[in-house]
Amino acid sequence: MPSENGLSRREELLAVATKLFAARGYHGTRMDDVADVVGLNKATVYHYYASKSLILYDIYQRAAQRTLAAVHDDPKLSAREALYQYTVRLLDQIAANPEGAAVYFQEQPYITEWFTEEQVEEVREKETQVYEHVHGLIDRGITSGEFYECDSHVLALGYIGMTLGAYRWLRPSGRRTAKEIAAEFSTALLRGLIRDETVRVESPLGVRTEIGTAGHNSR
Amino acid sequence: MPSENGLSRREELLAVATKLFAARGYHGTRMDDVADVVGLNKATVYHYYASKSLILYDIYQRAAQRTLAAVHDDPKLSAREALYQYTVRLLDQIAANPEGAAVYFQEQPYITEWFTEEQVEEVREKETQVYEHVHGLIDRGITSGEFYECDSHVLALGYIGMTLGAYRWLRPSGRRTAKEIAAEFSTALLRGLIRDETVRVESPLGVRTEIGTAGHNSR
Repeated sequence: MPSENGLSRREELLAVATKLFAARGYHGTRMDDVADVVGLNKATVYHYYASKSLILYDIYQRAAQRTLAAVHDDPKLSAREALYQYTVRLLDQIAANPEGAAVYFQEQPYITEWFTEEQVEEVREKETQVYEHVHGLIDRGITSGEFYECDSHVLALGYIGMTLGAYRWLRPSGRRTAKEIAAEFSTALLRGLIRDETVRVESPLGVRTEIGTAGHNSR
Repeated sequence: MPSENGLSRREELLAVATKLFAARGYHGTRMDDVADVVGLNKATVYHYYASKSLILYDIYQRAAQRTLAAVHDDPKLSAREALYQYTVRLLDQIAANPEGAAVYFQEQPYITEWFTEEQVEEVREKETQVYEHVHGLIDRGITSGEFYECDSHVLALGYIGMTLGAYRWLRPSGRRTAKEIAAEFSTALLRGLIRDETVRVESPLGVRTEIGTAGHNSR
């Protein structure tokens, strides 16, 4: 049953809850608030989601799916190309869904209070996949000699903080596009990792780079 | 009136509230919970803090003071040295007070609900100082020719996300010390920014580097 703006009622409900959770926190939002804003009675809300925590879990699953969609290691790509592609895909997703990303991160410290053990385990498993992707790419670059030796564990955590943390300020309508920001982040990190001086200066994002960065790639 | 472990009652109360807020969220913690854990009656708690939001504000002011203590640009230092020193000081502070940092970041999206306008303004002002410090150091390096051209605004936001975001996993008892992690982060970023090939390879953290990083500085 699509509503006026073409979203199904359930999708509309989810979008409203995501906005409210992002602004007030999960704990600070009641099912009544969601029902009020979406213009449904509470019984109808409970028809779609039997509990508030199931809404949060749906938000979590979708955010995790979007993040995992960014995680795809193509062995044909060099480590630097693969890291750059991951960054582009991830920031694109965050720019398109900043509120979903915000709810994910803001509620993360408390999910054991709201989710079942199985749900928490599923969440953690997906987070591990993201960490292992970035960690694995840095290790691949070290092993092949493409990158300097470094603590790939610490740098993976740092780079994930840098990229996923962009949900705090990255907006679709911002001064710079998600792709431009991805190029800035990747260029800085990869110039720091790449050993080969020519590659480092001329093509830190790999030969398959589709976009240019603002005039500093060719310096 | 120092209690058994030498902390004043007020400090003890603040430490307990910080732990509870970090674990359950500000919204999910009642003054009764704080009073219970610290072993005081509620009237005594209110003697020290007239409201729950004043506890949160105290946590905020202390966390901001610690972060600002890391922000000190010494014009005698090169931009790379100053960025590295900032990172060391910041990660030291986070490792020493992970729960204070957690409360700060976890509650950040909602502070307009709990704080007065003046309090919010003071918080924002201090955050701007941190951003401007990092932004200014990158700009200083670009202007002097020490660093490549880059979008210093985007990189400052990214680097702040990388360093401050470490509160999620940085612990005093971790496998790597805060100084080692600061050296990893700074080395990766600075190797990415520094133009001069010899400096980049041999002393990315500057001549005043006090500590070595795990064997990859000299490669």
